[in-house]
Amino acid sequence: MSIQVSVPQIIQKKRDETPLTAEEIRYFVEGAVKGEIPDYQVSAFLMATYFTGMSFEETAALTLAMVESGEQYHHTNVKGPKVDKHSTGGIGDKVSLILAPLAAACGLKVPMMGGRGLGHTGGTIDKLEAIPGYRTVLEKEEFTKILQEVGCAIISQSAKIVPADRKFYALRDVTATIESVPLITSSILSKKIAEGANGLVMDIKVGNGAFMKSKTEAVTLAKTLRAVAKKSGMELRATLSNMDQPLGYSAGNAIEVYECIEVLRNETLNPYGLPSTDLRELTIHLAAQMLEVGKVVKNLAEGRKLATLKLKDGSAWKKFKDMVAAQGGDIKTLDEPWRYIHAEKIVELKANKKGYVTEMKTEELGRILIELGGGRNKVNEPIDHSVGIFFHKKLGSMIKANDTLVTIFAKKNSNLTQVETKIRECIKISATKKAAPKLIIEANVK
Amino acid sequence: MSIQVSVPQIIQKKRDETPLTAEEIRYFVEGAVKGEIPDYQVSAFLMATYFTGMSFEETAALTLAMVESGEQYHHTNVKGPKVDKHSTGGIGDKVSLILAPLAAACGLKVPMMGGRGLGHTGGTIDKLEAIPGYRTVLEKEEFTKILQEVGCAIISQSAKIVPADRKFYALRDVTATIESVPLITSSILSKKIAEGANGLVMDIKVGNGAFMKSKTEAVTLAKTLRAVAKKSGMELRATLSNMDQPLGYSAGNAIEVYECIEVLRNETLNPYGLPSTDLRELTIHLAAQMLEVGKVVKNLAEGRKLATLKLKDGSAWKKFKDMVAAQGGDIKTLDEPWRYIHAEKIVELKANKKGYVTEMKTEELGRILIELGGGRNKVNEPIDHSVGIFFHKKLGSMIKANDTLVTIFAKKNSNLTQVETKIRECIKISATKKAAPKLIIEANVK
Repeated sequence: MSIQVSVPQIIQKKRDETPLTAEEIRYFVEGAVKGEIPDYQVSAFLMATYFTGMSFEETAALTLAMVESGEQYHHTNVKGPKVDKHSTGGIGDKVSLILAPLAAACGLKVPMMGGRGLGHTGGTIDKLEAIPGYRTVLEKEEFTKILQEVGCAIISQSAKIVPADRKFYALRDVTATIESVPLITSSILSKKIAEGANGLVMDIKVGNGAFMKSKTEAVTLAKTLRAVAKKSGMELRATLSNMDQPLGYSAGNAIEVYECIEVLRNETLNPYGLPSTDLRELTIHLAAQMLEVGKVVKNLAEGRKLATLKLKDGSAWKKFKDMVAAQGGDIKTLDEPWRYIHAEKIVELKANKKGYVTEMKTEELGRILIELGGGRNKVNEPIDHSVGIFFHKKLGSMIKANDTLVTIFAKKNSNLTQVETKIRECIKISATKKAAPKLIIEANVK
Repeated sequence: MSIQVSVPQIIQKKRDETPLTAEEIRYFVEGAVKGEIPDYQVSAFLMATYFTGMSFEETAALTLAMVESGEQYHHTNVKGPKVDKHSTGGIGDKVSLILAPLAAACGLKVPMMGGRGLGHTGGTIDKLEAIPGYRTVLEKEEFTKILQEVGCAIISQSAKIVPADRKFYALRDVTATIESVPLITSSILSKKIAEGANGLVMDIKVGNGAFMKSKTEAVTLAKTLRAVAKKSGMELRATLSNMDQPLGYSAGNAIEVYECIEVLRNETLNPYGLPSTDLRELTIHLAAQMLEVGKVVKNLAEGRKLATLKLKDGSAWKKFKDMVAAQGGDIKTLDEPWRYIHAEKIVELKANKKGYVTEMKTEELGRILIELGGGRNKVNEPIDHSVGIFFHKKLGSMIKANDTLVTIFAKKNSNLTQVETKIRECIKISATKKAAPKLIIEANVK
């Protein structure tokens, strides 16, 4: 490709808020991926973008250039609407494990490429790897085959798709340029387009455990995603959901699989009788949105009805088992979910005062999970799937004397004294009750 | 050195306009020079600095950290005030060649490290290398010795001093981060402090041939330089001078030496009888400012008087010859200045209309000089010292039919048709006379 401007001029245009052409953006992305444009020019460009932003047109051009930087999956033989969901990440966010089979049970095809946990949030791939035998790395052909036969597959992102994102993300991570709406947008959308999805539902988390702390930021991201997706030829809906507390009653890889099995089986199996009301509610809402995007239903209410039915009648549960089996997972372990509660050390933390839960420091709770060994501080760090935390209480819960606040699942040699103190600091108990926040803040950001 | 924050956090602080501590800045500069901090983090930091700037305190800390990144010259055995001058660069700016010996003749010590031409402006070192035998690369000891014995020496910047500037400048050049006042300030001051100057006079060029196109920008730079120099323990004065036309009557390496010799000898030797009024005026003003900075005189008027005297009585001329001799130059060539007019092809360009010169596109004239072979587009490109342009007319000059506009000094095989057209486009002739701009825009920016 030959263009009229030099690389420093492209950086300067971005710096000076002069719109870049699609050709200039493609030239830059191609050069960066091939290593013809050195990293120091790429990072200067990323920092300039952090400051001056990008128009929807530029962001769409960036997204498509990123898609073209690697292999693209089209799943041409797979019939039906291909719709995926992406969450900006939170604590206890295990929705994908239920949602993918549920949407497939309702008639969609869900070609899901998930990520691993990094920072304070968990990752879908880590959770699935708690299932013995489950293979998260599949070749394109097998991925398409399972998609065709089962209707959904959840695999880790192939190294071959969107190498530009891998490159940019690695640089952004160490140059303070993560928090840029156009860069976040192109990172998300390019991967979804490349994996072969035609439609996408975004679950944008807002709250003290989310990357977006305020609703305003989240709405900006939602609108940008929607506008850029449209320009890139993809249908997108965005939900804002609350992340001021962990989602569901568990955080930790194996026990999150356990909680998903409970929702999929419509049973409460855990020894503490904890319910998954919020997890179930959000999953049904997102499924309904996916069905609307895929035009399987006419509106959200219809979608909710269909999703509720397919969850209740066991179709989603069957799909989940089919998917796990197809990806090599041991489905016997799914029928015996207590297998997922196998930590070496289980400790119940009791409340030391009465009152109501009025605050949960969610990000900090995520960090405690990492400390226990259930997450990672660096890419490629090993994790322990067995560790985790059961939350017996949620925002608004009443606390009586001697109530269990949380159950901690830890490694044998863990010294939990400090962990217990930290967890107590994260869960604020006040005399006066405060209403729990609404789970779904915005059902469909226009 | 150990500090509390990580490199990404330092970049983020700069990005978010959180003041950096001197320790953090030193850690960053040290790490960058040692290669422990990769270039992609350095360039992200530079771009963040471009956008959020730096306080005077931060810029001073950056300057001193840059000084400490390499060797420092103190010239401890050299008696007397050590004062240097720095120009932001322009076309035909040959002041240093006259100024250094003139200031030395007045009692100052001038430890000058000059640069080579890059971009549209020329460089002092290239000009001096037009003198046969002149050595611009001297070891520290020889530099100090000449400074002690002659009073001035002009050498090219040693690779050992301020390696941080070399590193940062190379990155800024290709990442659109040149135009940053704190980065420009620290780049200039660090080199002057490291070369051993205690005082500095800045000649900040303003106009269509300068890096600073507006007076406002130039004043900002001047004030920043003054404030940061003070915090770094250096006395500094700044002059703003006009660069809407070439300085003096010549541009080109050898013929600029020729013009300097004329001023130093108080003679008009060139075959066209062209005067160097502006060059002489600016040099005397800057010498006076240097003398004031060095406390050799009480005020500017006294300085001007002393400098005029030392120029007229031949002391400056003698110092120049002593310096050239000490640095290995062939002083016989100085006594026969016509030796400097030795281009292979000499062409006079005649005016094709009558009127007055109302505009000279100075930057473009600089680029034409590069095209002729007298400058470089890339570092280390060879240049031809013999090429150049004599300007017979300046802003405000009356043009009669058939007047010579310029004389072009070119290589034998140059095709000058296009060059002549371009030069005509650079020199605007109008029917109505417009006053020539004031040479010295601000004699001392407070």
